[in-house]
Amino acid sequence: MASVFTRIIAGDVPSYKIAENDFAYAFLDIRPLAKGHTLVVPKLEVDRLFDLPHAHYTALWDFAYHVAHAMEEVLHCNRVGVTVIGLEVPHAHIHLIPIRGEADMNFAMPKLQLEASEMQSIADKISTALLATAE
Amino acid sequence: MASVFTRIIAGDVPSYKIAENDFAYAFLDIRPLAKGHTLVVPKLEVDRLFDLPHAHYTALWDFAYHVAHAMEEVLHCNRVGVTVIGLEVPHAHIHLIPIRGEADMNFAMPKLQLEASEMQSIADKISTALLATAE
Repeated sequence: MASVFTRIIAGDVPSYKIAENDFAYAFLDIRPLAKGHTLVVPKLEVDRLFDLPHAHYTALWDFAYHVAHAMEEVLHCNRVGVTVIGLEVPHAHIHLIPIRGEADMNFAMPKLQLEASEMQSIADKISTALLATAE
Repeated sequence: MASVFTRIIAGDVPSYKIAENDFAYAFLDIRPLAKGHTLVVPKLEVDRLFDLPHAHYTALWDFAYHVAHAMEEVLHCNRVGVTVIGLEVPHAHIHLIPIRGEADMNFAMPKLQLEASEMQSIADKISTALLATAE
């Protein structure tokens, strides 16, 4: 059965989408550690990041580079942190987390619950900044 | 003043080195969350990962791909997790952490203190596996 991320990429499950290209898809984590917490997912469904074929792996990190730059431009943060764990959903994904301190990267912390309108607004801001860079 | 990682890369500070290439240097974290916890550092000293020029960023993740494969080959783990935070040393670095569960990626957990001989043995094993792949 397709992973929840594959169903999001296919449009069968809704998401606060930021952008996509041939290899990857970026959208907001619905249980964010911080406002703007984003997931970058390869379109090729593999469980573990390092199981991705090299070209897909490289394209994924390239896409994450541009998404992170857009995040740093529009979110108020010290930097964008990166985590790949992948034990909860068997489809590799990069967490991009706007951070101010080390505690912001602790997955044992309680997650935020934001209104749909705020989530949409954050996704739109990052998406717009990303498109502006690409032009 | 040069960062501690730049001094390690220059050989002025000792490290349990795994490998290096033109762009990056890999060595064991001396305060590991798990046995084999590795740092992959760009030779270009920048504070934040996403401040790296694109070519250096791409080369860094490419190097990490090969190091992680070598780690997965010789360490007993479910997978290699990835974290980039970078608030403690102002020189971007990728943590590659052999994990079994999500708790293994919690930086608030107490770090391990291993004997020098065990650290050297782990570094040598990963290094040997990496060289074998490259041949």
